[in-house]
Amino acid sequence: MPSFTVFKGAKDGSPKKSTTQKPDQLVGDQVFVRITASGVCGTDLHFLTRDMVLGHEGVGVVESVGPDTKYLKKGDRVGWGYETDSCGHCHECISGEDIFCPERAMYSEANLDQGSFASGAVWREAFLHPIPDAITDEAAAPLQCGGATVFTALYDVKPNEVVGIMGVGGLGHLAIQFAAKMGCRVVVLSGTDSKRAQALELGAHQFVAMKDPDTKELESLWPLSRLLVTTSAQPAWDTLLPMMAPKSRIYPLSVSEGNLVIPYMPLIIKGISVHGSLVATRTVHREMLAFAAVHGIRPVIETFPMTEEGIKEALDKLDKGKVQYRAVLVPQ
Amino acid sequence: MPSFTVFKGAKDGSPKKSTTQKPDQLVGDQVFVRITASGVCGTDLHFLTRDMVLGHEGVGVVESVGPDTKYLKKGDRVGWGYETDSCGHCHECISGEDIFCPERAMYSEANLDQGSFASGAVWREAFLHPIPDAITDEAAAPLQCGGATVFTALYDVKPNEVVGIMGVGGLGHLAIQFAAKMGCRVVVLSGTDSKRAQALELGAHQFVAMKDPDTKELESLWPLSRLLVTTSAQPAWDTLLPMMAPKSRIYPLSVSEGNLVIPYMPLIIKGISVHGSLVATRTVHREMLAFAAVHGIRPVIETFPMTEEGIKEALDKLDKGKVQYRAVLVPQ
Repeated sequence: MPSFTVFKGAKDGSPKKSTTQKPDQLVGDQVFVRITASGVCGTDLHFLTRDMVLGHEGVGVVESVGPDTKYLKKGDRVGWGYETDSCGHCHECISGEDIFCPERAMYSEANLDQGSFASGAVWREAFLHPIPDAITDEAAAPLQCGGATVFTALYDVKPNEVVGIMGVGGLGHLAIQFAAKMGCRVVVLSGTDSKRAQALELGAHQFVAMKDPDTKELESLWPLSRLLVTTSAQPAWDTLLPMMAPKSRIYPLSVSEGNLVIPYMPLIIKGISVHGSLVATRTVHREMLAFAAVHGIRPVIETFPMTEEGIKEALDKLDKGKVQYRAVLVPQ
Repeated sequence: MPSFTVFKGAKDGSPKKSTTQKPDQLVGDQVFVRITASGVCGTDLHFLTRDMVLGHEGVGVVESVGPDTKYLKKGDRVGWGYETDSCGHCHECISGEDIFCPERAMYSEANLDQGSFASGAVWREAFLHPIPDAITDEAAAPLQCGGATVFTALYDVKPNEVVGIMGVGGLGHLAIQFAAKMGCRVVVLSGTDSKRAQALELGAHQFVAMKDPDTKELESLWPLSRLLVTTSAQPAWDTLLPMMAPKSRIYPLSVSEGNLVIPYMPLIIKGISVHGSLVATRTVHREMLAFAAVHGIRPVIETFPMTEEGIKEALDKLDKGKVQYRAVLVPQ
């Protein structure tokens, strides 16, 4: 101890079981976490063929702590997301923007021998987030990246804003709940009508099927002061930009290579801004968990066993866009 | 009266002298202004072949006022810019964002029989801005659009920001002065070294020649928290984005058709935002004039006679990028 089972990407795209060995003695503020649940996120699909441990929506129970830990103890429930370390002394770190630290440790960039598709992990206490009692391990897992990402894009929203959520999936179904509980009027833009009932149930006030929109419905939409794009494909900006209010903000949240290509003059004429946004700083992450606990915000999940087969099945289903709405792996 | 000489676009691209006739009796809060100076702006080049009066950086003296005017009287010095009317009752108008009013009257969209390349104009008092005593008519003219545009992009800047100004021209040379007087550290990005001395004189703290940058100079640049792009061509984003600080803002200020094409992942990874920005609301316009008066911010100008020949010469020189830095037309 601490050695643990991990599941890594492999050349054939099928996750492989392996073992990660850590030093016998925890040092500094290291904490050994026994993993009890892991979310499966769209970005995991990008690393399926890489020799690295997968998963970055981890939740578990503290098993043991290093000598310099301050507040965690054996038995505490904690979670972590994309970021697992930062330098602590740069401008970004000391101003609370640790996710922009040039030496930050991010999933797929550092600590490749660890991840949340595993039986355990060793992380710094400083980057582990206590899970509120009201949230189960399985429900907490998708909040560690999906929840953190949409909460960040909503972090400075005002309750009188009209928030558009494009896409009702892993991110979108959480964004609807957060925005609605923040007091915002929530407009959901989905491809077809199939998710209308569920979107309204999650808190949406207006819904439009973008592939074949009802003209009357389109005309009755409130102008959007903020739009979160959670779909993986680039949206049809020519349709979307007329829906935006003057001085509104667009947050493209999906991760993809290439260029952002967006009509230029409509941005100028309406004073619209486009905001790059990246998961959550530690402060925001913890506020997100507190907000979700108080307001009963919970991911809609499908669980899969944390085995080679279970992981493969979850990832396949996710890749086909068939998960309703977030896959969670649980140890057997 | 009021009938006046105007200069219009024409099919052959050479401005033509003409006459605009207005009703004998001023009504409502109409004001007749005798024009004493007009700036020449890059956007005027877009309308050279259109049958419309040119010019939207007007300055003049009040000659007569309508029955409902409240504060202007004969002899007052006033200016106006892109916007000359709005509805006054929509959400944007009553929240002080009149430039985003759906019924706003903007240059090239409404009142095509009037402009600032003219001997006079009739506008609503509500959209005329008193010129502070400290600013001459000729110096005030380029502030009505060029000054208003860069001031808007700097309106919520904090004095501790590092502001990059890309391009030292009509807009850029004003932006340098405004940002420097706001207390910001100003970094000028210019094509070559030719404008280094003048940029530093205008208030820049750092300067880099982008076509052949000195490596040491590049390394010593402060990361930009805000970048105003005042060049007409789309910049080389691959070079610029590494210069941006986390959570920084980019303001593309030039007007052009087509798409904004910008690398996507660097925006996400650094949390950078791109802001469409459009001239100034009336409030901001008047604050800009007050700020310029107090801080001695003045355009560097070249004057040309307000005649067919003078206008043609000014526009030709502007089109070739040879104006240092803003052309101003003055009546003969």
